[in-house]
Amino acid sequence: MSIDKVKREFVEYVKKISAYSEALGLVYWDMRTGAPKKGIEQRAEVIGILSSEVFSMTTSEEMASYIARLSNQEAIRKLDEVTNKLVQECKKEYERNKKIPADEYKQYVVLQSKSQSVWEEAKEKSDFSLFQPYLEQIVAYIKKFVSYWGYENNKYDTLLDMYEPGMTIEILDDVFGKLRERIVPLVKDIADNPNKPETSFLFKRFPKEKQKEFSIEILKELGYDFDAGRLDETVHPFAIGLNPGDVRITTKYDENDFRTAVFGTIHECGHAVYEQNIDSKLTGTPLADGTSMGIHESQSLFFENFIGRNFSFWQKEYDLLKKYTGDQFANVSVEDFYRAINESKPSLIRIEADELTYPLHIMIRYEIEKALINDELEVSDLPAVWNKKYEEYLGVRPENDAEGVLQDVHWSDGSFGYFPSYALGYMYAAQFKAAMLKDIPEFDRLLKAGSIAPIKKWLTEKIHKYGKTKKPLEILMDTTGEGLNANYLIEYLEEKYRSVYKLQNES
Amino acid sequence: MSIDKVKREFVEYVKKISAYSEALGLVYWDMRTGAPKKGIEQRAEVIGILSSEVFSMTTSEEMASYIARLSNQEAIRKLDEVTNKLVQECKKEYERNKKIPADEYKQYVVLQSKSQSVWEEAKEKSDFSLFQPYLEQIVAYIKKFVSYWGYENNKYDTLLDMYEPGMTIEILDDVFGKLRERIVPLVKDIADNPNKPETSFLFKRFPKEKQKEFSIEILKELGYDFDAGRLDETVHPFAIGLNPGDVRITTKYDENDFRTAVFGTIHECGHAVYEQNIDSKLTGTPLADGTSMGIHESQSLFFENFIGRNFSFWQKEYDLLKKYTGDQFANVSVEDFYRAINESKPSLIRIEADELTYPLHIMIRYEIEKALINDELEVSDLPAVWNKKYEEYLGVRPENDAEGVLQDVHWSDGSFGYFPSYALGYMYAAQFKAAMLKDIPEFDRLLKAGSIAPIKKWLTEKIHKYGKTKKPLEILMDTTGEGLNANYLIEYLEEKYRSVYKLQNES
Repeated sequence: MSIDKVKREFVEYVKKISAYSEALGLVYWDMRTGAPKKGIEQRAEVIGILSSEVFSMTTSEEMASYIARLSNQEAIRKLDEVTNKLVQECKKEYERNKKIPADEYKQYVVLQSKSQSVWEEAKEKSDFSLFQPYLEQIVAYIKKFVSYWGYENNKYDTLLDMYEPGMTIEILDDVFGKLRERIVPLVKDIADNPNKPETSFLFKRFPKEKQKEFSIEILKELGYDFDAGRLDETVHPFAIGLNPGDVRITTKYDENDFRTAVFGTIHECGHAVYEQNIDSKLTGTPLADGTSMGIHESQSLFFENFIGRNFSFWQKEYDLLKKYTGDQFANVSVEDFYRAINESKPSLIRIEADELTYPLHIMIRYEIEKALINDELEVSDLPAVWNKKYEEYLGVRPENDAEGVLQDVHWSDGSFGYFPSYALGYMYAAQFKAAMLKDIPEFDRLLKAGSIAPIKKWLTEKIHKYGKTKKPLEILMDTTGEGLNANYLIEYLEEKYRSVYKLQNES
Repeated sequence: MSIDKVKREFVEYVKKISAYSEALGLVYWDMRTGAPKKGIEQRAEVIGILSSEVFSMTTSEEMASYIARLSNQEAIRKLDEVTNKLVQECKKEYERNKKIPADEYKQYVVLQSKSQSVWEEAKEKSDFSLFQPYLEQIVAYIKKFVSYWGYENNKYDTLLDMYEPGMTIEILDDVFGKLRERIVPLVKDIADNPNKPETSFLFKRFPKEKQKEFSIEILKELGYDFDAGRLDETVHPFAIGLNPGDVRITTKYDENDFRTAVFGTIHECGHAVYEQNIDSKLTGTPLADGTSMGIHESQSLFFENFIGRNFSFWQKEYDLLKKYTGDQFANVSVEDFYRAINESKPSLIRIEADELTYPLHIMIRYEIEKALINDELEVSDLPAVWNKKYEEYLGVRPENDAEGVLQDVHWSDGSFGYFPSYALGYMYAAQFKAAMLKDIPEFDRLLKAGSIAPIKKWLTEKIHKYGKTKKPLEILMDTTGEGLNANYLIEYLEEKYRSVYKLQNES
């Protein structure tokens, strides 16, 4: 059979997998945005059937045969670049899935779902001991899977690579070390500093409907395309790309703290704008997705922090906000508003953390995961280690497991290696911002004028359009001319927070 | 292999088909309730892939083998009743689909979709000649399909059977003849009668949000279970059962005519309550569905007309309506309100027709379809025949094709044999109502007290719970003790409309 014919069949096969995945995506979106509860049990069957079909198609003999016929040297030479990337992507997934014995994987899936519900209960009762035996089993499985997958320098690298292809503890230890060294003292300086921003005016009642209208206006200004998406309400906000023409976001409204919805929406907008702008030639393939969790997060954080918490942005949007808030901010200057939304305060809960302290929350989790996977820590040690690290990095100590080691869902479903993406995204975003300033030195002037288009265009040309055809570190190198460099984030944070808190410069 | 083992495999196989169909159902619902337009093209791919998978699974060698092994006498004896029904259902679908050559079916599907868009254009331009060549092809295909499927007494019976298993023109000619004979003169009497109800008070502004709140209260009173469904807004209202725990309805709001939303919602509620109450042991199989279009329609019409346009119902609900409408009905007695919502007026458009004239719209279409399929009429004759029949049955004559022969979508996608279900549903509903009165003589008293539960329970026990395990005429016989009898509907209409219009009794 000619390479062309094999390619055509392979593409048809992959499109089928993508179609099933798209249907699954819609089922998930629907479950979170209002599917009636009595239909859930049968819907779970639908999810189970479609997911196993996807899994078996990605690991089938047929897939193996496509990969073999399309990944030899001759085929690679003859095929176009996108097809080559598609074959690589399928090959990677094939190998990852194929190495785990099917029955073990099945047991693991059952354990995951049990473990998640036990975690929920344990968190509610604030009792780690309930969760511990399940987490021990999860960790044991993850270690076993790593032994199937193999590793080069460190077992944890294999897990990192699942979420952030090419990422290693060597890189992370370096950048996290630098971050820690400069941020921990800055956090302390701020805590000791008397120039706290006034924030009480933030917490007046701002009706949900008005917040929604304001959020929609901001989304439009930021370039979110409502013809290729929609905004709904959920308990936990998220963005989901069903295909590049249908990337939905959700948000949550707190009538006494508009920041939840507004900054949450801007964050999800960043994720969504990424996927809305993936090259349409990748549609219907697994390449029509963000290239990694870290790059994805870089886009959401770029929007949330580098645009949404920027003074110039609010110079433009503050009047709009005032239009929707009645007299809430009538006597508040935009300078005071800006300081208020950039308040930094060491806290216990990651998802409520501010820009400055957020990376420290991630580092704590990274260090714990790395130690767990490398047998330097037992699951039973977690609560004590957790509390000690919070004290050390953030100067606060959880009073119970619920606000400590049990706060995140991630470990209950075995997502080890995922947490670093959050901090990576942050560092990437700062590094992209620095590179962007060389091409668009008028960045702040654009925000002040409400002209987001050139900024969005830059991100699309450098990052979005490639989808998964470029690896994260390749994008970083092509866009910024260097590998991961923590200094951009450090400098950004130091400059911003010294200014917000009116600290004297160290130098 | 033991029968039990074959049965288990068969059930797994069928569950997979049902899971794909459920996913498809969700995709359809989503497309109508707000899927962003730029995602539609790729979503159409998803629909195409999932539908062909469903089609090929229902006509596969594997399906043929299950049917062969499970439908012989020995198997039938050994299997439980539900499995036997399931095998029969799959067999029927297998045979229907298998008899059409795959390539012809594909061409037909392409034609259907073209024909629908041409119909839309033709309707917009009110020009039947645009649509005529497509309709001719559609009719030719349908005739050819009938020749593949075969027929006993009349070709049209084969089409009827697809929507209403067991229905024949022999039965329909009889009941429609009786209906025509009694309703046409009644419609004329009413037209000539000076006692017209006053209706102007119906058309005051009733804000959408308030209509929605009122509709939700009514839905709850009628036994629609919001834990197994949800209400959304669409251009064309519909009910869709994804599974019995998730049966969604949609409605449309006209701020200057609340009847659109309120009676539309009550109608869809009837469809939905049917599917919400199908026995849960049928969930995940094709038997968890309404048994036919006619029985489905009987439930929606029972709710819409026999409950929703009943005087006793409004004796209870009128105060609630007043709560939501401000002073719109402040000076209108419930008697006058009841007369107003039961106004009857011959009109050109089926979907806007009232209870009394509606069956005449259906009869016209039935007669035309029957003649077309039996070569007694050419497609080119349709506009003239249509207009003539409207004049004869309803005393009104369309001025153009848009308000005449082009008004319905049904023929453009080849749904010949479907229209009679609407009138059948109506006759079934009247016949069920008469049977119900024997068990629940206090029917009107219950409505007046807002106690719908016993009525819903009766419908569930007699009709809903069976899903597709009972054929329509079987349900009719078991529930009412006789075959289809048009007199129940005729008597209901005569009594009601003589009273609404204060006509003297004929006798």
